[in-house]
Amino acid sequence: MLDHIIAKIIEFRNERDWKQYHNPKDLAISISLEASELLENFQWRGSEEAVSEKIGNIKDELADVLIYSLLLANELDLDIQQIVESKIEKNKVKYPVEKAYGNKTKYTEL
Amino acid sequence: MLDHIIAKIIEFRNERDWKQYHNPKDLAISISLEASELLENFQWRGSEEAVSEKIGNIKDELADVLIYSLLLANELDLDIQQIVESKIEKNKVKYPVEKAYGNKTKYTEL
Amino acid sequence: MLDHIIAKIIEFRNERDWKQYHNPKDLAISISLEASELLENFQWRGSEEAVSEKIGNIKDELADVLIYSLLLANELDLDIQQIVESKIEKNKVKYPVEKAYGNKTKYTEL
Amino acid sequence: MLDHIIAKIIEFRNERDWKQYHNPKDLAISISLEASELLENFQWRGSEEAVSEKIGNIKDELADVLIYSLLLANELDLDIQQIVESKIEKNKVKYPVEKAYGNKTKYTEL
Repeated sequence: MLDHIIAKIIEFRNERDWKQYHNPKDLAISISLEASELLENFQWRGSEEAVSEKIGNIKDELADVLIYSLLLANELDLDIQQIVESKIEKNKVKYPVEKAYGNKTKYTEL
Repeated sequence: MLDHIIAKIIEFRNERDWKQYHNPKDLAISISLEASELLENFQWRGSEEAVSEKIGNIKDELADVLIYSLLLANELDLDIQQIVESKIEKNKVKYPVEKAYGNKTKYTEL
Repeated sequence: MLDHIIAKIIEFRNERDWKQYHNPKDLAISISLEASELLENFQWRGSEEAVSEKIGNIKDELADVLIYSLLLANELDLDIQQIVESKIEKNKVKYPVEKAYGNKTKYTEL
Repeated sequence: MLDHIIAKIIEFRNERDWKQYHNPKDLAISISLEASELLENFQWRGSEEAVSEKIGNIKDELADVLIYSLLLANELDLDIQQIVESKIEKNKVKYPVEKAYGNKTKYTEL
């Protein structure tokens, strides 16, 4: 399924001849810009109000974050499943259950 | 495969009893913070130097962007494939091939 | 007073021979990264808890946002007072009092 | 001069009765969103092209970053000169001249 999504994204990009612009630095900038556009839906309001009034925008901007993230992964030849599972393993070490249970403190202060 | 990744992320979260903190607004903030940590690897350097010196960090931070994105999608009961494909269709309208081919101009100025 | 602050920032930069890295694109990235570090103090908590527990960090990260903003303004030869007053005038047109009073709606939807 | 700018910003806010929305968390979000809008001017282009084609937008978005930063400082009763000078002192310790001269490495890796 992920392969299918990635293929659609690459097809969209190639039809527009945009690979030439998609260097990793500008893709990383793009992920950050889309994450801000997602966050903008929550500005000046709580979660509930945002979700009830802005769910259409939230879906679109979250999709854009994912699209650029998959483009960067593709550009760098990264395997999504591999990098996510490897990061979860690292997070398990940073946040051991016995210290982190029910605790939102950052690992640097745990 | 995506379901498998999502299941691992949810398991990690539940073992730490963190669902209580994961309201959509703070998850959107988290995506934005992780996107910045990803981008930090490209600060003061071009893509090539960043990728050659910081690929380990880049993988980890891109994974964190994906992890929080999947958590937000899960929290809002969104289907990843559906929102991404629907956004690609909208992007096709915003960026018609005949205007956007080889052109990096934003749709609002096309 | 602003001139005095800017002079201190430039002195700090010059003592480290960092002007060579301070191109406008990387300074804009830096402002965004520091804004995220500021925002991180509010992740998983409301304003009150953040301010009461993290005021030291908040001061430091807000200062960093200002430092990089002043560096970018200096690099581009911009007059702070002029650009801020000019933007306030534009915002007055975007948000006329009769429409915007007590209303948090974005100008594009007013 | 800074006092004069801050007074103009506060006047703009009060005329619209917006203080009610300006809690520190949402102001921190706003600084981050404006920093992204500033950065967007540099997406897909180098500094020189961005400055030559987008200087009007760059001025406006940098002004917005400053406006929200001054609003947050005002909300938290912070003295701009004091927090910036205090942060420069801390940065001097993090980046001693003898280690940091001509060196863009982050202090955590110096």
